[in-house]
Amino acid sequence: MKINTNFLNLKQSYLFATVGAKLTAYQKAHPEKKVIKLSIGDVTRPLAPAVIEAMHRAVEDMSRAETFKGYGPDATCYGYEPLIASIKASYARKGVSLGYDEIFISDGAKSDLANILDLFAAENTVLVPDPVYPVYVDTNVMAGRKIVYANANEQNGFLPMPEDIKEDAKDPDIIYICSPNNPTGAAYNREQLKVWVDYALKKDAVILYDAAYEYFVTDPALPRSIFEIEGARECAIEFCSYSKTAGFTGLRCGYTVVPNTLARGGVSLAKLWARRQSTKFNGVSYITQMGAAAVFSEEGEKQIAENIKYYRNNAKIIAECLDELGIWYTGGKHSPYIWLKCPKGMNSWEFFDYLLEKANVVGTPGSGFGANGEGFFRLTAFATEENTKEACRRIKELLA
Amino acid sequence: MKINTNFLNLKQSYLFATVGAKLTAYQKAHPEKKVIKLSIGDVTRPLAPAVIEAMHRAVEDMSRAETFKGYGPDATCYGYEPLIASIKASYARKGVSLGYDEIFISDGAKSDLANILDLFAAENTVLVPDPVYPVYVDTNVMAGRKIVYANANEQNGFLPMPEDIKEDAKDPDIIYICSPNNPTGAAYNREQLKVWVDYALKKDAVILYDAAYEYFVTDPALPRSIFEIEGARECAIEFCSYSKTAGFTGLRCGYTVVPNTLARGGVSLAKLWARRQSTKFNGVSYITQMGAAAVFSEEGEKQIAENIKYYRNNAKIIAECLDELGIWYTGGKHSPYIWLKCPKGMNSWEFFDYLLEKANVVGTPGSGFGANGEGFFRLTAFATEENTKEACRRIKELLA
Repeated sequence: MKINTNFLNLKQSYLFATVGAKLTAYQKAHPEKKVIKLSIGDVTRPLAPAVIEAMHRAVEDMSRAETFKGYGPDATCYGYEPLIASIKASYARKGVSLGYDEIFISDGAKSDLANILDLFAAENTVLVPDPVYPVYVDTNVMAGRKIVYANANEQNGFLPMPEDIKEDAKDPDIIYICSPNNPTGAAYNREQLKVWVDYALKKDAVILYDAAYEYFVTDPALPRSIFEIEGARECAIEFCSYSKTAGFTGLRCGYTVVPNTLARGGVSLAKLWARRQSTKFNGVSYITQMGAAAVFSEEGEKQIAENIKYYRNNAKIIAECLDELGIWYTGGKHSPYIWLKCPKGMNSWEFFDYLLEKANVVGTPGSGFGANGEGFFRLTAFATEENTKEACRRIKELLA
Repeated sequence: MKINTNFLNLKQSYLFATVGAKLTAYQKAHPEKKVIKLSIGDVTRPLAPAVIEAMHRAVEDMSRAETFKGYGPDATCYGYEPLIASIKASYARKGVSLGYDEIFISDGAKSDLANILDLFAAENTVLVPDPVYPVYVDTNVMAGRKIVYANANEQNGFLPMPEDIKEDAKDPDIIYICSPNNPTGAAYNREQLKVWVDYALKKDAVILYDAAYEYFVTDPALPRSIFEIEGARECAIEFCSYSKTAGFTGLRCGYTVVPNTLARGGVSLAKLWARRQSTKFNGVSYITQMGAAAVFSEEGEKQIAENIKYYRNNAKIIAECLDELGIWYTGGKHSPYIWLKCPKGMNSWEFFDYLLEKANVVGTPGSGFGANGEGFFRLTAFATEENTKEACRRIKELLA
């Protein structure tokens, strides 16, 4: 048996695992220190009451033969009707009309962003921004695909456009866009996204659009779905998640939109995805789906808006701290991420160690997201308000 | 963008989807008929009270900031400690000692059986029995792997051995074994499984062992884990599921054991799998994991044993019906599946239509599981006792 040797081309350790290992080692050596984590993008607010109530009801359903649920509907790649209907309605509020057969329920955007690659030939060339969420790169390395980069940097505000694609990489087949972006927090406006859609159509490429952070957008000039852009239905797949929208990181639920107008070589990508999912996946917990269906209810939307407001306020606290220190950053407005330039000319891991050791604050080194991330650093707004304020107090004390 | 054209080599429709479509069409044409489903292997008994209680508690945990859970432990490819500990203890009761780092929690055996293939080079040759669970074949077709077959048939009781491998296929790299088997219900004894383990070691192959039905085994002569067999830790990966064990088809939880003694070319497969999972997956719902952890508690084991007894009794009812009619079959003893020879010389789909139209009973055509399944038919024991008895009454009326 021969292993998939592409795995040997992966960098030795997953970024967050390395951050975790460094943190564990530090805590073991200094058990008396109270370390504040502004690193991994994990939520801390409890679930909305509407979600909790819906899940208790669903647990009860599973306790009685008359209401018990086994495998989900339609070979389990689509979700239960109330959930799909709530997603359809949520899109309608953004002005996007979707069919039931275009919405696929899964255990999260990360899984779908990885698994969607099964649909594409290994010889496609993949374009990712640099810096980028490591999963886009690692999943393609595992499949042996050629990866090319678009330069994101201080000059373009970490929002690369087609002209920022590196010289040797002018014909991408698969284009990753994440907006609002992880790790930089930067968000494309409609005009910029239209340029990307037109570029993809011209190149016959497919855009994989990661919209995991769309609920953090408040400026109506910024799109919340790529399908608000004309032409996107012919070139894009959109990945959404309840993780950041409604605090589902520990529940696992996301949804992916594959328009039935998206085809290549006469083959419908929605049909390929349905076949992939019905063969390799068995759907999402009924209890989780009922919880998710409550998220976009009138009550649910109000409750999750409060949680998002809480995180947005944390982002504002961090942004004001950096403003005060005169540190350059992107994000923090329509995103839970703040992407800052490391002070004192430090590189990313130097600043990581410095912040951990001197302020007991953990962030994520920008260089872990790509070469252009070197010298930058990601902080997140998902901690408690108290911890966010305390972390900022320590950062100001250290750097002022 | 070029699609993965291997998808075009798949048969047009997934077996159970075809069965479902035929059923829907029949019901639409005959809304007055009460059709009984003994087809898809979906459970009908409600969850055990211990599981329900544990999940209500877990839902409550998610409602308070102090007990809220986000991403799972250890980059989320391993489960929560109480769950892993309960699985470790369950293996210990079978005489198998496992380390914490050898047990991986997922959303089900189907996902893991499909996703594990990421670890293997595309040029490996795959050996599957014929007939076989279609997922083994389809997932390898999607990856473009060469598939070869071992003949399972009436002569070997649908328990093929290495000598039953078809002539042109003597060097498999990946070997699928499912015992107790889906679809045939047949189960290997220790001596037979030892032959397979020795064969795999000789060929330097890896066995993917699907143990989804192990809780239906009562005969102590039959192994419940491949790791009861000497040498298996050097050649096998085992896939387990709470779906049939504890009625989790609608909850989604399974576990996969990759021994840390399993390596090829100096590379640990457990480490590859950990890397695959931490990159492409984000763990299983905390609520589901807490429910699963209750399954192997003293109380939970008692309660699930009652459900399994209920299904085993259904299997016995079906077996007695076939005995009475003089119809040849395998399974039904250590398995929820009964695999029968179609009467009156009918082929599988002919018998499917005949049974649906004349007795309003739905089963699964054996030919959907492979060429050697032609002329055979699968019934399952997962219906209610009342429906199972009524289905048998109708079958006897039709065929006596």
